[in-house]
Amino acid sequence: MTGASGVGKDTIRRAAAPFLSDIAYSISATTRARRPGEEQGVQYFFVSKPEFEEMIRSDALLEYADYVGDHYGTPKAPVAEALESGQDVLLELELVGARQVKRRMPEAVMLFIAPPSLWELERRLRGRGTDSEDKIQKRLARAKEEIRAMREFDYLIVNDDLDRAVQEFESIIRAERARAGLVTDAELESYLRS
Amino acid sequence: MTGASGVGKDTIRRAAAPFLSDIAYSISATTRARRPGEEQGVQYFFVSKPEFEEMIRSDALLEYADYVGDHYGTPKAPVAEALESGQDVLLELELVGARQVKRRMPEAVMLFIAPPSLWELERRLRGRGTDSEDKIQKRLARAKEEIRAMREFDYLIVNDDLDRAVQEFESIIRAERARAGLVTDAELESYLRS
Repeated sequence: MTGASGVGKDTIRRAAAPFLSDIAYSISATTRARRPGEEQGVQYFFVSKPEFEEMIRSDALLEYADYVGDHYGTPKAPVAEALESGQDVLLELELVGARQVKRRMPEAVMLFIAPPSLWELERRLRGRGTDSEDKIQKRLARAKEEIRAMREFDYLIVNDDLDRAVQEFESIIRAERARAGLVTDAELESYLRS
Repeated sequence: MTGASGVGKDTIRRAAAPFLSDIAYSISATTRARRPGEEQGVQYFFVSKPEFEEMIRSDALLEYADYVGDHYGTPKAPVAEALESGQDVLLELELVGARQVKRRMPEAVMLFIAPPSLWELERRLRGRGTDSEDKIQKRLARAKEEIRAMREFDYLIVNDDLDRAVQEFESIIRAERARAGLVTDAELESYLRS
């Protein structure tokens, strides 16, 4: 799941929470400063730059990338554990990280969340009041770059109506779980004897 | 959309009718006998064998195949017209016909509807009381063949619970309409100026 900050990724995820109850959500590590209300290990694992670099060196990250001056990365172990236990995993990544995961795990489903318009995204970022003008401009430039690449993704949700966006989000997950290619040889043989 | 007779394709389609209101449904031509309650041009275009063979000769069919002793085929013109006007089209085909359409239109989405079990399919076919024992056996043999090939399809819906099957059916269509690859160059450029 990829999309500029301010695009409503968290809102969609919260609205879809009952549906997502059996899907593991991967918590990223980041060097960015904690915002008011954020808690350690809930929104992110907040780490120092040296700690982050140690995670890179010890190959503890599935992907990592810089975004508007900070490091973000996905700790490998929790994702591997969830997948091994048969759970699906939801990752919230920016473009560079999403590409890394797709290369390592071609079976990953890539979902892009776009704002109704760039103008609306700018309005939302200013309304949030957490970023300096400089950061807002950087985020907007980055959002444009990601939008240019949106067709690399499997799916696109334009978040102009939250109910519809949530419905599309859930539909995509439901559809991907109905992939005929997921049926194993053993399942097919057992079905043919049913 | 492919699945043995008795698997509930029509029931799913009827239950999803409000959702399908903007999707064209292709009516097949067939040489099979009309069943009580069936109307010309509603369930099928009922034609004679010579009429069907004339349609093949004049290349008026998108696909055609034999199924349990009768010919079935999709008239080309209505499908082409609907697609040109921007409508999606739902085709109900057996395996051979579905493969022909996928070869001609690789963008087609292939959906397989499976019964809860082969035993349950047999029970439903007998319960319907429209077929001779010989036809029932042929339908079951054909169903097994199609099930063996189900992984050629994009999606699999097991119709063991109608509400869930309808929800999956609608989700698959909604997800396919959210494909990022459907965004045209012009749409992307216009979005970037928004």
